[in-house]
Amino acid sequence: MKNNPLYKLMNPGSIAIAGAGNNPRKMGTLHALNILKGGYGGKFFPLHPTEETVLGHKAYRTVDQLPQVPELVMLIVPTDAALHLLDEFGRLGTRRAIVVTSGFRETGAAGQKKEEELQEIARRHNIRFLGPNCIGMMNSQISLNTTVMPLSGQPGRLGMASQSGTYVTQTFSYLKERGIHFSKAISVGNETDIDITDALEYLGQDEETKAIALYIEGIKDGARFIDVAQKITPHKPVIAQYVGGSAAGARAGMSHTGSMAGPDFLYEGIFKQAGIIRVDTVEDLYLNGWMLASQPPMRGSRVGVVTNSGGPGTAISDTCDKNNLEVPRFSPQLQEQIRQLIQAQASSTNPVDLTFDLNARNLSVVIPELIMQSGEVDGLVLHGAMSHGFLRAIHPYLQEMLGGISLEGFLAQFPVDFTDMVSLPVKYQLPMAVSSFFGNEDNYTAAFRSHSIPVFDAPEKAAKAMSALHRHKEIRERKEIERTPLPALAVEAEKIIAEAVAAGRQVLDEYQAKQVLAAYGIPVTRERLAHCAQEAAEAAQKLGFPVVLKASSPDIAHKTEQGLVHLNLKTVDDVKQAYSAVIAAAGSQVPVLVAEMVQGQRELLAGMSRFPGFGPCIMFGIGGIFTEAIKDVTFRAAPLTETEAEEMLTDIRTAALLQQFRGMPAAETAELARLLRKLGELALLHPRIAEIDINPIVLSGSRPVAVDALIVLTKE
Amino acid sequence: MKNNPLYKLMNPGSIAIAGAGNNPRKMGTLHALNILKGGYGGKFFPLHPTEETVLGHKAYRTVDQLPQVPELVMLIVPTDAALHLLDEFGRLGTRRAIVVTSGFRETGAAGQKKEEELQEIARRHNIRFLGPNCIGMMNSQISLNTTVMPLSGQPGRLGMASQSGTYVTQTFSYLKERGIHFSKAISVGNETDIDITDALEYLGQDEETKAIALYIEGIKDGARFIDVAQKITPHKPVIAQYVGGSAAGARAGMSHTGSMAGPDFLYEGIFKQAGIIRVDTVEDLYLNGWMLASQPPMRGSRVGVVTNSGGPGTAISDTCDKNNLEVPRFSPQLQEQIRQLIQAQASSTNPVDLTFDLNARNLSVVIPELIMQSGEVDGLVLHGAMSHGFLRAIHPYLQEMLGGISLEGFLAQFPVDFTDMVSLPVKYQLPMAVSSFFGNEDNYTAAFRSHSIPVFDAPEKAAKAMSALHRHKEIRERKEIERTPLPALAVEAEKIIAEAVAAGRQVLDEYQAKQVLAAYGIPVTRERLAHCAQEAAEAAQKLGFPVVLKASSPDIAHKTEQGLVHLNLKTVDDVKQAYSAVIAAAGSQVPVLVAEMVQGQRELLAGMSRFPGFGPCIMFGIGGIFTEAIKDVTFRAAPLTETEAEEMLTDIRTAALLQQFRGMPAAETAELARLLRKLGELALLHPRIAEIDINPIVLSGSRPVAVDALIVLTKE
Repeated sequence: MKNNPLYKLMNPGSIAIAGAGNNPRKMGTLHALNILKGGYGGKFFPLHPTEETVLGHKAYRTVDQLPQVPELVMLIVPTDAALHLLDEFGRLGTRRAIVVTSGFRETGAAGQKKEEELQEIARRHNIRFLGPNCIGMMNSQISLNTTVMPLSGQPGRLGMASQSGTYVTQTFSYLKERGIHFSKAISVGNETDIDITDALEYLGQDEETKAIALYIEGIKDGARFIDVAQKITPHKPVIAQYVGGSAAGARAGMSHTGSMAGPDFLYEGIFKQAGIIRVDTVEDLYLNGWMLASQPPMRGSRVGVVTNSGGPGTAISDTCDKNNLEVPRFSPQLQEQIRQLIQAQASSTNPVDLTFDLNARNLSVVIPELIMQSGEVDGLVLHGAMSHGFLRAIHPYLQEMLGGISLEGFLAQFPVDFTDMVSLPVKYQLPMAVSSFFGNEDNYTAAFRSHSIPVFDAPEKAAKAMSALHRHKEIRERKEIERTPLPALAVEAEKIIAEAVAAGRQVLDEYQAKQVLAAYGIPVTRERLAHCAQEAAEAAQKLGFPVVLKASSPDIAHKTEQGLVHLNLKTVDDVKQAYSAVIAAAGSQVPVLVAEMVQGQRELLAGMSRFPGFGPCIMFGIGGIFTEAIKDVTFRAAPLTETEAEEMLTDIRTAALLQQFRGMPAAETAELARLLRKLGELALLHPRIAEIDINPIVLSGSRPVAVDALIVLTKE
Repeated sequence: MKNNPLYKLMNPGSIAIAGAGNNPRKMGTLHALNILKGGYGGKFFPLHPTEETVLGHKAYRTVDQLPQVPELVMLIVPTDAALHLLDEFGRLGTRRAIVVTSGFRETGAAGQKKEEELQEIARRHNIRFLGPNCIGMMNSQISLNTTVMPLSGQPGRLGMASQSGTYVTQTFSYLKERGIHFSKAISVGNETDIDITDALEYLGQDEETKAIALYIEGIKDGARFIDVAQKITPHKPVIAQYVGGSAAGARAGMSHTGSMAGPDFLYEGIFKQAGIIRVDTVEDLYLNGWMLASQPPMRGSRVGVVTNSGGPGTAISDTCDKNNLEVPRFSPQLQEQIRQLIQAQASSTNPVDLTFDLNARNLSVVIPELIMQSGEVDGLVLHGAMSHGFLRAIHPYLQEMLGGISLEGFLAQFPVDFTDMVSLPVKYQLPMAVSSFFGNEDNYTAAFRSHSIPVFDAPEKAAKAMSALHRHKEIRERKEIERTPLPALAVEAEKIIAEAVAAGRQVLDEYQAKQVLAAYGIPVTRERLAHCAQEAAEAAQKLGFPVVLKASSPDIAHKTEQGLVHLNLKTVDDVKQAYSAVIAAAGSQVPVLVAEMVQGQRELLAGMSRFPGFGPCIMFGIGGIFTEAIKDVTFRAAPLTETEAEEMLTDIRTAALLQQFRGMPAAETAELARLLRKLGELALLHPRIAEIDINPIVLSGSRPVAVDALIVLTKE
C-alpha cells in the first residue's frame, strides 16, 4: 500500500499552497477555502507574494521562509511559476505535489516541452505528483477536499478516479443530493507522473473504498492497467465509463488533457478482460458505482419486485429481463403470505403490485421482509414508497379543510419509523435498490439515502443498478487468470521475417504468413507452392484430392473475386486447368499455392493489431466473405491467458455457432483459445509484425484450420 | 376532431363525481380535491349517500336529484356500484365517463364479466368512457386535473397517454421540477371503450400538443394504431416506451390492466412502421418527449457543443456520434471568433471547452449565439452554465470573510440577465439542450426550465435528447406511405389450401407452399415433383442442369442434415443416384422435388406469423443455415406499403449485404420489397394460413429467389 505514491499524497500532515489569495473569485482561493473549511486537521501554509495572511492564515513570501517542510504542495499558479516552484519545493524536501496549473501538453508543442521539464524537475527531487491540469483530490476519511467545490457529508465508500476534473468537483452537489459519498476522489489531469492506473491501484488497496468508479478518456500503459485491475476486480467491483471513441470525442479529450483515445471497440474488450463493468453515462457511473459500493453482493440472479403501481413493476421486470436478471414467480406459500397483506385486485406473483395506497408500511417493510426471508430472491427492487412528497403537494388543497393546519403540523400527523426498513439489506445480506419519483423532499427517499440505500428517479434505473451487482457476481466467479511466461522465439519464423525485411518487403504472402503461424503451432492448411502446372499437379497428388489452387497474393480480401482462387479440384486435369486460369487471371507468373481443401461451413477470423498504449491486441470473430457485413468481433490485449482467450469465444453475438449446430459438432474451443493465445505471443516475440489477419479460419468438423492469412510488417 | 370521444371528455362544462367525500385519506376525495383546487372553472356535482356537502359543495344523494345533466361523470366507487351508477347517469343523459373503479378484467374471469356489463351499459346509453381501472386525466388548457396528485403550473405542450396511471399522476412533482408541462394527459386503464389509439388520435389533433408521449404495455387494434400514428408522425413527433416483452413484464401488465403484451421485437418493428420514436425508459419518455415538444425541429445532423469542461464535452461528442449526430469541426472563421472569447488553453474546435470559469455569460450566451448565427450547426448542446448552485455551496465558507453576508445578499452580488440566453432557440429556430449538475437551486437551470429549454442532469442525456429530434427529422422526411387495395385472391392458391384442409393436413409441403407463393408472383425456384428416378431425370433435363434434389418434406429445418438434399447435380446419372439416396435416407417412398440449382452466397429469409392485436406480421432478415445464430430479423404488420417494405430492407444490422458487396451486385430491392408486400397480402387474403417461412431466399446475382418454403395452416 505505502508503495503507491498516492498513499502519502492523499494523507498529508501538512499542505502548502501557491496561488491562493484573498480574492474569492480566484480558483486558487477556492481550492484553499475547501481545504480550510472542509474539516481538514493538518497544517496549512499559503504562499503569497504580497499578502500578510491568506484566508486568515499567515502567508509566506518564499519557500525558504516556510516553518517546516510541507508534506504536500498544491500549485495553482501560471505555468512557468509552477515549474519554478516545484523545483524550490523539491529542494526544500517536499515529495508530493498536486499541480492544478494548466498550459502544458493540452496546449500543444510548447506546452508539451514544459510538461517534460515539469517531469524532469519532479524526477530530480523524487517528487510524485498529480496533474498538471487537474482539479485536485478529496479524502473523506480525513475530511480533506482540495478541489474547488465545497463538499460536506459523511465519509464515503465509493472511490473515484477521473481523467476529467469535473467529475470530482462539479458534481459534488449532485452526488450529495443523491446520497452518494466518495471515500476518495482523484483528478489525474495530464497524468505526467501519477496516472489513473496508480489511482486504481491505490483505491483497490484502500479499505474504506468498497467499489471504484473510473472516468477514462485514454489509457497510457494498457498492460499495467489490465494487470492492476485484474488483481482488484475479483474482490472489489470496478465500474468505468470510457468516452473518446468518436472523432469529436477524441478531439475533445486531446484538447483538455492531451490524452490519446483509442477506438471504442478496443476499450469494450479491455474492460471485459480487466473485469471492469462498463457503463455509457456518467449517471450510471455514479449511481451504479454507489449501488456496488453500498449494497451487499448479489449471490444469484433472482430479483423480487415490489411496487405500488403496475407500470413501474412492468418496467422493472422488463429491464431485469433485458439485463440477465430473473423475476421469478413466487412460490404459492410466499404468495399466500403476501396476499394477506394486499387488496383483492393487487398482484402477489412477482412483481408484487400493491396498487396506490397512502400507507406505505406493507410496501416498504413488511412485504420486502417476507420476500427477503423466503430465500426466493437474490436482491430486491422497490418502487413507490413515499409520504411527505405527496403530502407536501396536497397540503395546500387540504389546509382549509383541516382548520388551517401548517405544513409541519400536517406532516407530523403521518409519523414513520424507518428503523426496520433501512436495516433490511444488512439484516438479510441482500442488495436493495429503490425507485421513487420523489426526491429528498420525501421522507422515504431521504431515509433510504441517508442509510446508504440507493434511490433512483426511475424504475428502470433501479433494475439496471441491480444488474451491475449481478455483473460483479459473474466477475467474482470468473476463472482464474494465470499468466505464463512467453514461449521461446521460433527461429524459423524470425528467419522468414528477416528475409522479408532484408528484401524490403512489407507484407508476407499467404504461404510465408502461414509458415510463421505454423511455427507457433497454429493449425494451417497443408500446402505447397507451385511454379508450373506440373509442380501444381504433383503437389496436389502429394496432398491428396480435393485441393484448392490460389495465387499466393498478399491481397487477402479480393482473391476470390479476381478469379485467383479455384476450389474443390478433384483431378490432376482440374489442377492443371486451374493453374493456367490463375496465371491468366493474375496476368503474370505469380507463385501458386496448392492447398488441401478444408471443408466446413463455419468461418471465423482472428487477427492482431497494435494500438497505442496497449501494444498487440487480438481480434476474434466471424470470418469469411461476410466479415464486414456481419461485424461480429471482439478484442483483447496480448498476452492472453487461457481464461481470457476462452472468454473471447463467448463474447461474440453469434457465439452459438461454436456450439453443436445443425448437425455440426461443437468447435474445439480449447484449440481455438490456444490459437488466439499463440497469436498474441507471436506478436510479442516479433515486434516487426505490425498486423496479422487470419480469415477465414474454417471449422473443419470441430477443428479450426487457418485457411488464409496475411502478415504485415512494420515500416522500419 | 370532435368525432374523437375524448374531445368532449377532456373539455367538460360540468363534472359529477361519485366516491368523493370529506375524508382526505380516500382516493375519491383526492380526485375531487384536485378538480376543485386545480383551477377548473366548470360546475362540480358530488354524489354522496350521507353527507350534505362534500369539500364545501352541495352533495346529492341520488342521480335524479342533480340540478342538471353533468357532461362528465367520474366513478370512484366499488365495482358493482359503478355498474349501477353508470346506468343511472346514462339514463339521465350523461355521455362521457371516467371509471376509476377497479375490480374488472385485471382480477380474472368474474371481473371480465363485469367489464363486459360495463361496456354493455355504456353502449346502451351511447356513453364513451375512460377506464375502468384508470387514474383519470388532466387538461392543462382548462386547468382540469382529475387525478390524485396535485398539479400546478403553466399550460404545457407535451401530450401524454398511458396504460399505467402512475405516469399521469405519481410523476407530477417529478415533471414539475424538471420544467416539463403536459398539455393533456390521459390514463386509459383497461381501455374497455376509449383506448390508447383514441388518445393518440386526440392528441394528434390537439393544437396545444406539440409532441406526444405514449406508455404502452400492449396494443389491441394494431392496424388502427399504425394507421392513426402514421397520419400524425410526419407532422408531430410521437415517442413511446413499450414494456411487457418479458415473461414477468407480461405477467405484471396482465395483472394491472389485463393488457396483452407482445414480444419486444414485434413492437420494435411496429413503432418504426408507425413513425414512432422508441425509448427504453420512462425518463427518456418524459425528457426526450419534452425536448420534442419544446424545441424547434432539427433540420440537419450537425451539433455544436459548448462546455466549461472537457469531460462532459467528450461525453456529449461521443454520445452524438453513437446516435447518428455529427459534431463537426468549426470553420476557421468561426473558431477565430470563438478564440477571442476564451482562454489560451481552451478549445475552439467543437466541442468548445471554456474550462472552469465563474463568469458564464460567454459560455451561456455569447458563444452559443456565435455558433447559432454561423449556420454551421443544426442544434446546440450546452453544459456547465451555473451560478447560484455553486455560490450557495461556497457561501458558508466565504460568509465570515465577506463580513457575515447573508446568502441572499451574496447571491445578489451576482446578478444575471437571462433574456438573451433563453431566447436563443426561438430567435435562431435551432434546438438547444442543456446539461447541468445543478438542479433548480441554480438560477441558470431554473431560467432555462422556466423558458421551456430542457435541462438534463447529465451530458449524455442532453446529447441523446438532441438525437430524438434528429430521429424525428428522419421520420418527417420518410417516403410517403401510400396504401393500396388488396389484390384479387388467387384461385389456384386457395385451391391448394382447400385441398390440404379437406385432407386434414396442417402443413403445405415445399412444393405446394411454393405454388401458393408463385400464385402471387413471388419468385420461386423452377421445379417439378418426381415419383421415380426416371421422372427425376426427365425433370432435370427439362429444367436444365445443374439441379437440386430434395425430399418434399415439410421439415424445413433439418432436411440437409438428414441427407434429404442433394445439390449441384450435373448429369442424368447424378440425378438418378441422388434420387435413390434421398429415398434411402427418407426410409420411404416420399415425393422428390427436382429444382433448378440457384447459385448465390447471400441467403435471406422472409416469414409471416400472426400476433394477437396485429394479425399477420411480416419478418425479413438473414437466412440460411446460420439464421438462428445470427438472429438478424425485423418485423412489420401487414399489409405493407412500398415504403414500409423498403424500410425493412435497411432495418437489419447486416443491411450492407444487400448492397454491392465483394463483386456481387446490389440486390434488386424493389423485387425484395415486392416479395414482402405479397407475403402480407397473401396472409390477409388467406386467413387459413397461420404461418409462412421462406428460408432461404437466395440472391441469384441480384435477383431474390425463394429456394425453400413452408406454409402452416390454422388448426380449424
